[in-house]
Amino acid sequence: MSRDKIQIFDTTLRDGEQVPGCKLATKEKLIIAERLDLLGVNVIEAGFPISSPGDFTSVEEIAKLVKNATVCGLTRAVEKDIEVAAQALKYAKYPRIHTGIGTSASHIKHKFNSTPEKIIERAVKATAYAKSFVEDVEFYAEDAGRTDNEYLARVLEAVIKAGATVLNIPDTTGYCLPDEYGAKMKYLRENVKGIENVILSCHCHNDLGLATANSIAGVQNGARQIECTINGIGERAGNTSLEEVVMVLKQHPYLNLDTTINTQLLYDTSQMVSEKMGMPVQPNKAIVGANAFAHSSGIHQDGVIKNRETYEIIDPADVGVTESAIVLTARSGRAALAYRSKKIGYELTKDQLDIAYTNFLSIADRQKEVQDQDIHKIMETVNIQAGVLA
Amino acid sequence: MSRDKIQIFDTTLRDGEQVPGCKLATKEKLIIAERLDLLGVNVIEAGFPISSPGDFTSVEEIAKLVKNATVCGLTRAVEKDIEVAAQALKYAKYPRIHTGIGTSASHIKHKFNSTPEKIIERAVKATAYAKSFVEDVEFYAEDAGRTDNEYLARVLEAVIKAGATVLNIPDTTGYCLPDEYGAKMKYLRENVKGIENVILSCHCHNDLGLATANSIAGVQNGARQIECTINGIGERAGNTSLEEVVMVLKQHPYLNLDTTINTQLLYDTSQMVSEKMGMPVQPNKAIVGANAFAHSSGIHQDGVIKNRETYEIIDPADVGVTESAIVLTARSGRAALAYRSKKIGYELTKDQLDIAYTNFLSIADRQKEVQDQDIHKIMETVNIQAGVLA
Repeated sequence: MSRDKIQIFDTTLRDGEQVPGCKLATKEKLIIAERLDLLGVNVIEAGFPISSPGDFTSVEEIAKLVKNATVCGLTRAVEKDIEVAAQALKYAKYPRIHTGIGTSASHIKHKFNSTPEKIIERAVKATAYAKSFVEDVEFYAEDAGRTDNEYLARVLEAVIKAGATVLNIPDTTGYCLPDEYGAKMKYLRENVKGIENVILSCHCHNDLGLATANSIAGVQNGARQIECTINGIGERAGNTSLEEVVMVLKQHPYLNLDTTINTQLLYDTSQMVSEKMGMPVQPNKAIVGANAFAHSSGIHQDGVIKNRETYEIIDPADVGVTESAIVLTARSGRAALAYRSKKIGYELTKDQLDIAYTNFLSIADRQKEVQDQDIHKIMETVNIQAGVLA
Repeated sequence: MSRDKIQIFDTTLRDGEQVPGCKLATKEKLIIAERLDLLGVNVIEAGFPISSPGDFTSVEEIAKLVKNATVCGLTRAVEKDIEVAAQALKYAKYPRIHTGIGTSASHIKHKFNSTPEKIIERAVKATAYAKSFVEDVEFYAEDAGRTDNEYLARVLEAVIKAGATVLNIPDTTGYCLPDEYGAKMKYLRENVKGIENVILSCHCHNDLGLATANSIAGVQNGARQIECTINGIGERAGNTSLEEVVMVLKQHPYLNLDTTINTQLLYDTSQMVSEKMGMPVQPNKAIVGANAFAHSSGIHQDGVIKNRETYEIIDPADVGVTESAIVLTARSGRAALAYRSKKIGYELTKDQLDIAYTNFLSIADRQKEVQDQDIHKIMETVNIQAGVLA
């Protein structure tokens, strides 16, 4: 049986790009959009066309360029926003308008100074208006994570009737726990009339470090699209990391879910986005961090050298990393020293290794890392001593 | 009813410090250990004493220094390791030896070339030997995440009988999904004789971005200790982030779980560890990243200015961040411009704001961020034009 496909909706160029310091010129956005298309994402959210003339141009140019993915533009539930987005998406092969409004009590009261009934009216009006321009209309119920489920179901029923094809359930503040977010999706699958004809979408923020887990809980409970960004960039603590959700699904075949992503392009794409946006990826970032496949403790290095799968669940080559880095530090064991020594030409006897390792530790306790040049020096000593011992 | 306390076991100085580039001198480890004690962690894993003479000294000095927390040293299930750890912990007010062995089929076969029964023997022997030196013995079942539950239960029963006080259930490879990891804890709670007299501990790795969610699933299912590090540093993609699990528990009172952490020290502690270890924290890191409380899109800024809780679930002051940063970019709206302008002395009429905003956008489309000096220039223009309009 083939695995159910989860749509990957990439919002690196919208939710990611709106972050302090991440703004890109149109030319750079085009390079990233082309790469995302090659990576195999299903939807590229290209921008928020009404927000500035520069962003309008970017969305328009991306719409012209992209060959495979749906190109999407964000709007508020405001006529002018929708008109401008439609115009920016005019040349897209597969255009989508993404419109919506806040549905939580907090948003209805503080942001809109409105009432639940009036919000439904605005949601329906915006959806229908977007539908007059494009077939594919995604509706977001902003702050759905904190929205009462019964009311949320009413909003969604109304926008399905108005023509929405995709329903985005954002955990806007990153507050949900995975079981709550999963339960919300389950409730919607079971209680919204017409839900079987549309796609439910996860849009999770990472304020508590739970975005990936929440998105996975979402698709385990019936959602079929995940909104995410390269390196998890986005407002505040960012969005769901594309590379993380893609690899979770790939590595858990029993979930029977998969994506169309060419995972071997993940590492390079991560590097490209990090560099163009000036947003560093921390070394301990899952999947794409510099240390994601680095083993430093002696216990771990010994295990990996005996059998990679002792400590690695992902073959680095599957995400475009060429090899597991074995970094030598004072926490490294004999096995790692022997392994690296062999790589640079030294086959050591046990006695030689014992002597080399003592030298190694005294160097390693003084430096952060032991490099190949240090090993060559150690070996000089070993060879002399080994000669004496022999 | 008071909330159940979850023990915070910090392994920044052991699992964190063994990472490429993170090695610290004893002096620096002492500064961090003192800070962790002040932060309110319950256990400090200070190092792996047998691994090098430098590490032995660090554990010994930390044991002398720390006033409140238990000080813990790591060992393999090897007599010499345990003896050396006991010696390093001699001066600790509350010493703990952390010993253990791999229990998954992969570890038993590839790492130890052994059998399940022999592994239980080694586990029991190591636990009993550690118990001959200290009262508080934590046992780790390495790769428990991939260990068959029934066998794991047998191992744990045996080590409880041998005197273990804490049982560490590591998801060593970061492979588990939260529901699997939670189910494993539940199974152990229900099937291990004597489990009610010991503490179950979560030790999750972040290879798929799920460490925080897995740890929370663990404590929702009966675990009462979380092993974690500042900034989530650690082998490969790192460990569970201390700051994330602490804030998840704090922000979800209905879980009825809490910690003894003084959360207002989180940000400074994060900065200290990042700086001393030379491990950058990415801007979109949850809780402690530079952008964790920064709002840049117009929609979000407008919401936050009207009511902070529209988009923020955590008061930045609660984690030691002084204020929500409002950064101005081409994605910022009128409200943000007005807000920042007011902060630097300009009260604008609606007409003035409209004109200023057009100028603002043309600047913002050319630069990554708009700074106060740019606003002053814009205001010069506005004042002149406003004069003409008036």
